[in-house]
Amino acid sequence: MAIVTRMPLGQDYASQECSIARALEVVGERWTLLVVRDCFFGVRRFSDFQRRLGIPRAVLSSRLADLVEAEVLERVEERPGRPDYALTGRGRDLWPVVHALYSWGEEHATPLPGRRGFRHAVCDVELDTRGQCPTCGELPGPGGIAMVPGPALRSGPNDDRASRALAAPHRLLEPLLP
Amino acid sequence: MAIVTRMPLGQDYASQECSIARALEVVGERWTLLVVRDCFFGVRRFSDFQRRLGIPRAVLSSRLADLVEAEVLERVEERPGRPDYALTGRGRDLWPVVHALYSWGEEHATPLPGRRGFRHAVCDVELDTRGQCPTCGELPGPGGIAMVPGPALRSGPNDDRASRALAAPHRLLEPLLP
Repeated sequence: MAIVTRMPLGQDYASQECSIARALEVVGERWTLLVVRDCFFGVRRFSDFQRRLGIPRAVLSSRLADLVEAEVLERVEERPGRPDYALTGRGRDLWPVVHALYSWGEEHATPLPGRRGFRHAVCDVELDTRGQCPTCGELPGPGGIAMVPGPALRSGPNDDRASRALAAPHRLLEPLLP
Repeated sequence: MAIVTRMPLGQDYASQECSIARALEVVGERWTLLVVRDCFFGVRRFSDFQRRLGIPRAVLSSRLADLVEAEVLERVEERPGRPDYALTGRGRDLWPVVHALYSWGEEHATPLPGRRGFRHAVCDVELDTRGQCPTCGELPGPGGIAMVPGPALRSGPNDDRASRALAAPHRLLEPLLP
């Protein structure tokens, strides 16, 4: 397991031993959790991340390299010489963080809730705010969850192929596009 | 409800309507979630945050002001003319985010797990990684959770009064110190 040794939160930071602080040292960089989010959505290709996020290529390169170094992502070579990116087991364990941010944002931070929903695939029912299936009581992992477009979804300013593909229901973690 | 209108993640950000991105616009700034963490722990006073986090006063002032503006924190005047800070209902709803980061950090990002545990107060049993009580199956909110020091807890470089108080079991949200 790679323990990230950089301490971007501050050298003398008393709480650097705190697990919350250590987690933020790995995923608290600007854009990092949005890259991870897109990985859950099945985005794998550099150009697709780049168009979805609209950030400079150098920033995206740096974030992806950091996430690979931290063993949150791994490079997968589906096309010769052109690495794609996928979540490792360690990265997939970030699902509760991403879902908790989603739930909080839906309730408290967006003027437009209902763009997407997350459903327990087996029961075909929307997860509650804690990520629990109201039918069976399970707290499914991302492999058991389908993301479905909601009534508030509308096309954004970036009409890229990955965002278009995400207008259809999609099982988390499954590659979104060839 | 205050919708934060600044868009620090980028003006042309295609996913700005995404609830995850919107949540990060409120709590994704460096240090912000560590301030929120300390509020769950019952820290309320500017000087205690400052000593716990070891960040410049101006940075802390800015983070606190942003969190008050976003209605995640509110100022409470327990001492005349000297505001303290406490989580609003909206802020308390961030507990699943903080706990998910804690769980991931414990498993994947710290060389020293077991500094603190979170227990369902009613059942007096440690919550699982998803924040669920293994005894009763409940997903308690922070008001029903006790933080307890774990075997790996040791005093850090900053021997401040709030960190010392946190070496004893403490119910989340309850003011830590007078």
